[in-house]
Formats: sequence, C-alpha cells, structure tokens
Amino acid sequence: MWELVEEDLESIAIGAGILGTGGGGNPYLGFLRAREAVRRVGKVTVIDPTEVVDQHQIVVSGGMGSPVVSYEKLPQGDEEANAVRALESHLGVRFDAIAPFEMGGGNSMAPLVVSAALDIPVVDGDGMGRAFPELQMITYLIYGGSAAPAALADERGNQVVLSEVTDAKWLERIARSVTIEMGGHAGLAGSPMDGAHCRRTIIPNTLRLAQRIGEAVLEARRNHWDPGAAVVSVTGGRRHLRGKVVDVERKTTKGFARGHLILEGIGDDAGRKIRIEFQNENLVVLEDGEPQVVVPDLITLVSTDRGEPLTTEMIRYGFRADVLAIPCPDLLKTPEALAVVGPRAFGYDVDFIPIS
Amino acid sequence: MWELVEEDLESIAIGAGILGTGGGGNPYLGFLRAREAVRRVGKVTVIDPTEVVDQHQIVVSGGMGSPVVSYEKLPQGDEEANAVRALESHLGVRFDAIAPFEMGGGNSMAPLVVSAALDIPVVDGDGMGRAFPELQMITYLIYGGSAAPAALADERGNQVVLSEVTDAKWLERIARSVTIEMGGHAGLAGSPMDGAHCRRTIIPNTLRLAQRIGEAVLEARRNHWDPGAAVVSVTGGRRHLRGKVVDVERKTTKGFARGHLILEGIGDDAGRKIRIEFQNENLVVLEDGEPQVVVPDLITLVSTDRGEPLTTEMIRYGFRADVLAIPCPDLLKTPEALAVVGPRAFGYDVDFIPIS
Repeated sequence: MWELVEEDLESIAIGAGILGTGGGGNPYLGFLRAREAVRRVGKVTVIDPTEVVDQHQIVVSGGMGSPVVSYEKLPQGDEEANAVRALESHLGVRFDAIAPFEMGGGNSMAPLVVSAALDIPVVDGDGMGRAFPELQMITYLIYGGSAAPAALADERGNQVVLSEVTDAKWLERIARSVTIEMGGHAGLAGSPMDGAHCRRTIIPNTLRLAQRIGEAVLEARRNHWDPGAAVVSVTGGRRHLRGKVVDVERKTTKGFARGHLILEGIGDDAGRKIRIEFQNENLVVLEDGEPQVVVPDLITLVSTDRGEPLTTEMIRYGFRADVLAIPCPDLLKTPEALAVVGPRAFGYDVDFIPIS
Repeated sequence: MWELVEEDLESIAIGAGILGTGGGGNPYLGFLRAREAVRRVGKVTVIDPTEVVDQHQIVVSGGMGSPVVSYEKLPQGDEEANAVRALESHLGVRFDAIAPFEMGGGNSMAPLVVSAALDIPVVDGDGMGRAFPELQMITYLIYGGSAAPAALADERGNQVVLSEVTDAKWLERIARSVTIEMGGHAGLAGSPMDGAHCRRTIIPNTLRLAQRIGEAVLEARRNHWDPGAAVVSVTGGRRHLRGKVVDVERKTTKGFARGHLILEGIGDDAGRKIRIEFQNENLVVLEDGEPQVVVPDLITLVSTDRGEPLTTEMIRYGFRADVLAIPCPDLLKTPEALAVVGPRAFGYDVDFIPIS
C-alpha cells in the first residue's frame, strides 16, 4: 500500500501518456482533473494487487469515448464516480477498491478521481497494460470476468445500467452507442469482480510503471538527456525510428479517431519512411508495406526534444517524434488474449510477432 | 375485469391498427404473437382502470423501434417480458399489472403477450390513445410520472436499464440509440408508477374501443357495408377523403420511418388532392398547402374495400384508401399534452385545431 499525493501526478501523467500508445484520452486534461481531486482529499490510497483479498468487491473504472471529443467537451469530473454509484446502487453493494480499466492517457487518471470522490483505494494495475480502443479488450473480461452489469453516466445526470449482455462485444457495442448519445464521452463502471479474480487477471503495477517512466522523462529533461532513450531504459523495447510527421489522415467515426500517420526518418534514420495506422491507439507500424511492430506490442510516439507523449488526436504535420516499440505484458500474449487484442482482432491479416 | 380470449384478438388487432394512425408496428405480426401467447395460457385478464387500487405497482410495456424493421427482424416474443423482468430485478419489486404504452398496431398486442408470460393483468387503456413515435409522448409521463428507471431488452439476452435520466426526452434519446444498436427493435418497460397515478393519467378503455372498432369493421365486411363509415360510427370524426395513393416517399432514418403520401380523391372526392406527412405515424393532412387535420387528432387510412388499416410502411402507389379524421382523447388536448404531442412538437408551425 502506498499513498499517492499531488506531486506524484505529473510523472504518472507523462508515463501513462506514453503507455497510452496514442490513445486513452488526453493526458493533460486527465492530469488537471486528478490534481484537483487529489488536492481536495490530500492523498489517494493505492494497494498492490497482492494486497487485494479474495472477498473484496472490485469495480473497473474509467472513461469511454473518442479522445477527440474530450478536447471540446471537457469531462466534468464526476461522470466516472456517478457510474460507480449507479452500479453500486444496481447491485446493492459497496465496492472495496477500484481497478483501472486502462493505463493510458487520461484514463489512467480517472480512477484516481473516483478514488478521491468515493474514498476507496485504487489497485496498482490495469486491464490493458496500455490503452486499447474497445471495452472487451480488458484482461478482466478476457480471462473470464462477467461483462455485465456495467454502468455509464454522463455529466447531466443520465445513468444507464447494462444489466445483462450476451458477451463482451455486445457490452462494447451497446455502451459505445450510449456513450455517443451522451455526447461522445461517458464515465464507465463495469466488470464487477471479487478480489481473487482481480489478482489473477490484473496487469500488475502499471501505475508504478507509469510513474517510473514519467520520472525518467523528467530526469532526462532536467539533464538534457535523450528522453526517448530514457523511456526505453525503463520499459525495454527499442526506438524504432526517429522521424518527422509528413502526413496525417484522421477522422472521427462511430466514436473513434481512425486514420494513419506517415513519418520520414531524420538523422541516422534518414531515408526511411514508416506508416502507422491507428484506431484511437497506434496499432501497427508498416515499413515498405511490411508490419514491423504490431498490436498488442506498444507503439508510442514521444516528442524528440521533451519526451512528451503524442496522442493520435493531437499529432500534426511537422512534429518530430521518436517512435518507440515497447513489449506488451505477458498477459496480452496468450492465445486467449491475442484472439481479442491481436492484429486480426483489428482487421490485420498478420500474425503477432513479439518485438522482444 | 374481463377475460380476453383468443377470439377477441382479431377485432382488437384491426381496431388497434386503425388507432395506430399508420404506426405502432405491424398489426398482423402483433396479432400472430398475441394469438400464440393467449392460446398457450387460455386467457388474459383485463382490468378496468377504475379497478386499479392505489397501492398497485404498475409498469408500462410495449415495443420500441421502427415498424419497418419488424418486417425483416421479427420480434421473437419475449423481448417485452424480459424488459419487464429486467426492471423488476433492478427495482426489486413484482409488478401487479401492465399498462400499455400505446394502443396502436403491434404495440397494442405486446402487453397481452407480456401479461400471458408473467401472469399479471393488463389495464384497459394506454398512454397515447393512439400511436406516437416517441417515448416522452405518453400521458403517464406528460402528467408527472417518473421517466426513470426504464428497461430495454432484445432477443439475444441483452438488457439495459436506464436508471436515471435528466428528463423524458433523454429517456427517448438514449432508449432510441440502444434500440437501434439492438437491431432496430427492442422490448421496453418503463414509467413504473402506483395505481393512483395510473388511474389519473391512463387514457381509459382503449382496448375495448379497439375491439368495438374491429367488430364494426368485421360486421361491415360480412354485410358488404362501407367499412370506413363503420369505423367513424364508433369513433366519431369524419371521412376526410376517399382517394388513391399517387405518391409515397419514405425513408428509415434514426430508427424512424419518415416521409409523406399524396392521395388524389376518387368518387365524390374527385379533383381533390391531399398530402399526408408522417414520422412512423400520420401527423398532418395538408390540402392546398393548408393543414386540415393535425396531430394529436388521429389520421388513419383504411382500405376502401375491407377497412384494413394501412400502415405507413406498407402503403404503396395505387392503394385505395379512406382517410379518416378521428378526434383524439381529451387527455391529449390540454396545454401540457399539446406541448409534447401537438403540431409544434413535431416541427409544424401551426396551432392545434380540433376536428370536432
């Protein structure tokens, strides 16, 4: 158990932005919300997955929606907590702890806001070890958790409980359409589980990992070291390319930011050219038409000068970026997981070849 | 209290089709479902609104979705009952009786199917006295009922509870988007209320009215009388035009059948031409650009030969029809009701001028 305070948030936001692989919502907006919430209560209690006891009632929390929307429709701050309250009220229980949905961008911060609002601890870990675009892609569900009930809430007071769903893909479909109707962003609470299931299926210690990544970036900034190299020293993997963005195509359809980037190498990488395809998150790096890095491994872009995580909705022509290829957690590499989060689940007819 | 048996269904289906003013779902499909259900249990108990006691817990039941969809995606029969079960489970209550949502087309039959499935009586009446396209247009809500919670269910096992909504229009918006995601048709249970509220806000005895209308049509068929005139003799109002459909424009957008019809008068009405605009239901009759009959008064088309109700999704070029103008119930004529179901609520900048 440790106590997370305001000063921890900057590094966590940077690290979670990097683990967000381009998605997961805006890390800066998430940071502002979390800072406000943590300031108000002083601290948030974080428990290690090993400290979760079998009888604990755990709820998975985060935000749902296209990150593009959150720029103009700022989350009001209590959507996620209201979703948890709606689920508690539906089930007639009080949850003992919050398990983050994804450790990426703003969605790494939302559980901290909920923790502060409801005064229950956050478990250090998440269901993706990164960000993914769809709800069925969380390890809690991949490894047998119940897709229902789940609850969505907006900032107006609307609350929707998905009390029964045929499977996790139907959870995603129905929750997505409700989110769109709620204006493109909603708080989500779901996958209620006991402590035993949480311990078995959570990707552990990703909050600490985000913090360590962020601290490495901040240290590199202070010392004028190479921030991309600092990230890789913590996460493993490699810098795949240092380059300049020469083309961005992006559209927001059905609640997702979809599109691709083209980067041309600079410095040692001059002459190379890669294409990155994304759906909220970066999914595949192609070079000469061949996949070089493939989901669920992490493809993340940071600015070359400051190691700032670059999300798919903020990236623009001319940005200079390190394209980092980071190995995904082992829980995403099993056949069960690859069926849900592997390249074929995103429509790419290639096998997953781990980068490490 | 009376007992509704299989033999009553044919006339109710015809009458409800006529009260459906072109919408409310396919009366024939609804009839087949209800016949199956009533046959199985032998009878359905119908109670008069005056027999509802204050402490009764009443639920409003029906189907939601575009009638066009129900032709290809046949309701499976238990969507509506599952929606009631989902709401019972959410609230932790057992309902004492079912109040129909609308007395139109297939939706007049759905509550009978639910009644048979759950073995609780149906109250003789409904929340519209006809059919309307949107959920907030039921008298139970217009006159102060609570828009939440409500539940939707599909045939696959998905169940969604709208546990809190900002107002009845948000109920409609969110429920509509869930219905579309469920494939365009869903069972709906909502507006839970006590018996006192039901007695005060239900449009009474519309099931009996539908039956009387249907019996009049069947009698006219047997005796080769004029079926349109037989309907008007029961409902009041008038035959506005006998004509031939010369143009139909219809598209299914956002879960609704929207469009217009043009009819040219025949016989005594030769030389006249009217335009009927609809959104699932017929909303306004225009002649020489002037509104002649306006929602919430009923505009309903029946075939000239057999008095068959013609729905907006089945009507085609060449059909010969009596356009009937029927006065709406008094509960739809108050300022509160007209704000929700009057012509301006549908985008027509005209006042409601009752036909009678």
